[in-house]
Amino acid sequence: MAIKLNDSRLAPFVGKNEVQEMTALVKCAHDLIENKEGAGSDFTGFINLPRDYDREEFEDIKKTAEKIRSDSDVLVVIGIGGSYLGARSAIECVKGIFHNDLNLEDPQIYYVGNNMSADYVNDILALCEGKEVSLNVISKSGTTAEPAIAFRIFRKMLEEKYGKEEAAKRIYCTTDKSRGALRATCEKNGYKTFVIPDDVGGRYSSFTPVGLLPMAVAGMDIDAVMSGAFDAMKDFSVCDLEKNAAYRYAAIRNILYNKGKTIEMYTSYDPRFTSLNEWLKQLYGESEGKDQKGIFPASVVNSTDLHSLGQYIQEGRRDMFESVIHVAKVQNDITIPDDDAESGDGMFFLDSRKLSFVNEKAYQGTVLAHTDGGVPSLSIEMPEINEYEYGYLIYFFEKACAISGYLLGVNPFNQPGVEGYKNNMYALLGKPGYEDLAKELEARIDK
Amino acid sequence: MAIKLNDSRLAPFVGKNEVQEMTALVKCAHDLIENKEGAGSDFTGFINLPRDYDREEFEDIKKTAEKIRSDSDVLVVIGIGGSYLGARSAIECVKGIFHNDLNLEDPQIYYVGNNMSADYVNDILALCEGKEVSLNVISKSGTTAEPAIAFRIFRKMLEEKYGKEEAAKRIYCTTDKSRGALRATCEKNGYKTFVIPDDVGGRYSSFTPVGLLPMAVAGMDIDAVMSGAFDAMKDFSVCDLEKNAAYRYAAIRNILYNKGKTIEMYTSYDPRFTSLNEWLKQLYGESEGKDQKGIFPASVVNSTDLHSLGQYIQEGRRDMFESVIHVAKVQNDITIPDDDAESGDGMFFLDSRKLSFVNEKAYQGTVLAHTDGGVPSLSIEMPEINEYEYGYLIYFFEKACAISGYLLGVNPFNQPGVEGYKNNMYALLGKPGYEDLAKELEARIDK
Repeated sequence: MAIKLNDSRLAPFVGKNEVQEMTALVKCAHDLIENKEGAGSDFTGFINLPRDYDREEFEDIKKTAEKIRSDSDVLVVIGIGGSYLGARSAIECVKGIFHNDLNLEDPQIYYVGNNMSADYVNDILALCEGKEVSLNVISKSGTTAEPAIAFRIFRKMLEEKYGKEEAAKRIYCTTDKSRGALRATCEKNGYKTFVIPDDVGGRYSSFTPVGLLPMAVAGMDIDAVMSGAFDAMKDFSVCDLEKNAAYRYAAIRNILYNKGKTIEMYTSYDPRFTSLNEWLKQLYGESEGKDQKGIFPASVVNSTDLHSLGQYIQEGRRDMFESVIHVAKVQNDITIPDDDAESGDGMFFLDSRKLSFVNEKAYQGTVLAHTDGGVPSLSIEMPEINEYEYGYLIYFFEKACAISGYLLGVNPFNQPGVEGYKNNMYALLGKPGYEDLAKELEARIDK
Repeated sequence: MAIKLNDSRLAPFVGKNEVQEMTALVKCAHDLIENKEGAGSDFTGFINLPRDYDREEFEDIKKTAEKIRSDSDVLVVIGIGGSYLGARSAIECVKGIFHNDLNLEDPQIYYVGNNMSADYVNDILALCEGKEVSLNVISKSGTTAEPAIAFRIFRKMLEEKYGKEEAAKRIYCTTDKSRGALRATCEKNGYKTFVIPDDVGGRYSSFTPVGLLPMAVAGMDIDAVMSGAFDAMKDFSVCDLEKNAAYRYAAIRNILYNKGKTIEMYTSYDPRFTSLNEWLKQLYGESEGKDQKGIFPASVVNSTDLHSLGQYIQEGRRDMFESVIHVAKVQNDITIPDDDAESGDGMFFLDSRKLSFVNEKAYQGTVLAHTDGGVPSLSIEMPEINEYEYGYLIYFFEKACAISGYLLGVNPFNQPGVEGYKNNMYALLGKPGYEDLAKELEARIDK
């Protein structure tokens, strides 16, 4: 079993002919990837990664994870964007959002270097007090401000705690194989390293050591993750809109976008998908949001948000469609106790039902209500949540994103807009070489 | 000091005359509220709440919170939508997102009844094991499915743990003053109750017992919260676009919407605003997203999301504006250690800087980059994060939302679209009276 695309509810919005008529364009996008002829094709290494990944390094990841699990209460993951969201979304999806509090046999995983809140950093430092700690620094260059700053702070903490020599044995760096500041630092200090392949961009890096080391430390079965990714790689290599769910999803997104559905609402019915939603927003927002175009990715977790954005989705502007990640089977179900007739909630029809049953009916009722309200609704059907299915799902979205970007006529692998804030920030921080920009910006800031 | 609106960067997008030209419409919206003549005016009780709230009940909330703090390790808050987001956003904003792990003198606060994930419920039950637990059930009617189900499950847990009599002393219900299933249950079982005023809707209820009891249990100074709200009430009662920041914000939102800026990006630079973003999405999305119109509320937390949605914001479709909650002063700063020249991150210009300084430069650089990229950017300037400023901020957004809704020509106090999913769900669950709808829906569900 693996995930399936359910687009049966799209009939009022997308004719069958419309999907078929995308065949040639999809074939074109497919060829751009296969032949490495599209924009950004230097970064299509993720396509065959589940087949071609470095087996020796993979074994080393598992061995290293065992070491960290045996000598650490806490793993602090330092990374921003694709350098932490892949791991975080995987761990929270498979292990649940309370894994740090409940899985006492696993190290706690904390994420820093993805923001510059001093209060947040102080909180994480406090959480590390009295605990055995290791660091996983994830940065291609080592010169992105957020992780570089966090590395300084947490390396200092580690060196004060263990001394320089022992601290060095607790620092694991995932970085470029030969270039960059972080690589040089590792060689100088003897930090153990793992490699971010040259041809895999940050948001496509879940199946590299970037994602795999934290997952393994958290107790995930990364063999199963790769096995799911590998099966997805095979299933989504076929250039056929009937058989290839990723291609079909990409085609449908393109059709809807061209009809003015400019917001995609990633939807789930379990809070464990909260970080996966964030990963999806990065994957699709960063891949497609450029050249003044692109579907705007948003997200909800239901039924929570049915009592929030639900109103907007049902009756607001009709420029939205929803993509639901629907899970058939929960990990641990719970039976709703009978009403003892003293609460009087009037819902005796819930007596002795499984909670998953009610959640399923909420899902079914909602997608029909949205369809009737003018919101095209499709589902990505996931049989259950485990490492295999997670790997399969991630590959599905990655491959679909690449096809989707090419259908939109953009480079799905770059992120030129991120430089805008970075350059301004460096200028305002006084980085050499940015003096003119600094002067210009300073004059514009409110005093 | 209290919050201010900074719209100085809007010049390229909104002329000064445009704001002035909204004067008459804003006056009209103001009068609709003041005279209770607008749509949904039965629910404008939040307007004078910071002045008119029940002092006796307020003291009771504080006393009850002290009791819970003295006899409970955990407070489980059962509520959905406005019945938990106000409290949660307040606690996480003021106490930080790790308050449960770090503030060991305060009870841990967990939220259930806002989703129907069995795995989530099982996790919270596990977190309660071996701990002293109290419940705060928050529901106007007592018949909303999510909290009603959670109440059954957690009441059972409590009764098994303490016996029926002692459990009853640990159940606190915030509900309608005289009607509804939950009120009846409380009277039958002797549960202590607090009142949700008739004229205050869920998403406007932060300053009622709905928000205040959990805040007080978490150790927040709710006198200061109300004091901030009271000052905001005074400041935002003046019908003057120059002096009233809430009205000015509402007018600007309306102007931008009418120019095709249909997405508002709520933005902050600290993860502690994550839940406040969710509260904002409910407040604005539910108030305005109806009749096929309304600004779509989205959110980011930077600098995290500058490496995610940042690309889209900078270069995607130009139908967005951003509203930044900008905080002048962090709670606890941290000094960036000097690079010991061994990391080679090349950022010596960061040596010995405060992290808050770098975060501030990221903010300044980003808002200028966005402005240059075609995204109107305004800031809500918050001097610091504490209970007073939080109360002030929340009132600011509530008042602005009411004005904004009336400017848009909608009823900002109802949520008719929420019934869509509810009715479908009840039908599919076999609720009596929904048989015809059930038959119709069943036929449409994929087998």
